[in-house]
Amino acid sequence: MAVYVLRLGHRADRDKRVTTHLFLAARAFGASGGMYSGRRDPSLEETVRNVASDWGGSFGLEFSESWRDAIKAWKRSGAVVHLTMYGLPLRRVIRAIRDDPSDKLVVVGGAKVPGEVYALADWNVSVTSQPHSEVSALAVFLHELNEGRELDVAFEGGRLRVVPHEHGKRVEELSGEFKI
Amino acid sequence: MAVYVLRLGHRADRDKRVTTHLFLAARAFGASGGMYSGRRDPSLEETVRNVASDWGGSFGLEFSESWRDAIKAWKRSGAVVHLTMYGLPLRRVIRAIRDDPSDKLVVVGGAKVPGEVYALADWNVSVTSQPHSEVSALAVFLHELNEGRELDVAFEGGRLRVVPHEHGKRVEELSGEFKI
Repeated sequence: MAVYVLRLGHRADRDKRVTTHLFLAARAFGASGGMYSGRRDPSLEETVRNVASDWGGSFGLEFSESWRDAIKAWKRSGAVVHLTMYGLPLRRVIRAIRDDPSDKLVVVGGAKVPGEVYALADWNVSVTSQPHSEVSALAVFLHELNEGRELDVAFEGGRLRVVPHEHGKRVEELSGEFKI
Repeated sequence: MAVYVLRLGHRADRDKRVTTHLFLAARAFGASGGMYSGRRDPSLEETVRNVASDWGGSFGLEFSESWRDAIKAWKRSGAVVHLTMYGLPLRRVIRAIRDDPSDKLVVVGGAKVPGEVYALADWNVSVTSQPHSEVSALAVFLHELNEGRELDVAFEGGRLRVVPHEHGKRVEELSGEFKI
């Protein structure tokens, strides 16, 4: 099952860091790629591209002129999960989402999510019914979807790799190991 | 076991939204309260206070003049977990952290984390060894620490409560139910 993440209504000025964190979390927790609507933001795309090139894997990010078209195109062959604090509790629906073999588009709101998104989604899912962050909601959703297996995934083809350490930083480069 | 979150080196201009998301995630995933160092930011404190007052629970946020003093004071009676992509993998250490009955301070980095933090921490823990976000790292760490039980916690004393819904928004107010 491939998983992509669609971020709605990105505002290049206000949302830059949160949207960057969102897509880095998407990548780290096993999504194959991302899309975003709203305002096109080349520096966001560059940041995500640079992380993928340094740290491996094939996560890509694309701008979508119309979230509506993106969701409708996706629904021709895949299913849509919308993360919202107003949806059904994660634990009540995660098994059904996992058991459904179709590819998933995980839609994550921006400022104000149009009601149409709630109607288009196959699942509206809440990760707690409390206000927090699209970054934490996405990470915990993907962590549950993957049953934690993403924690052990190695990303292929990067330039850098962390060597886990009890009390310091250690990073391996293709050309050898160095401490930073 | 009480859990508090300490955010290092908050910059009021750059970090406002990410730090807000971080503390809202801390609250939603079961932490009792937060502290932050760096630049004092009354609007951050107000946002977090307003969420707690609207949505219940007793999460509080305090500014700390010195992260070093805060960590050292904590260590007199509790243990310190530092979340960093360079630390030991979550799955390798989470059981030991859970089994240790002392209260936990979860330290989350800002811009550049001083080496001293790695030395002071009882555990340096990585939530994946990939770069992503302190918000996602904290949420997944707390989710694992609580073994998912935080997803079902009801927050007492708030003014608002979500009524989970398949395809829309429904919020209950103390004075009755309304759709927003």
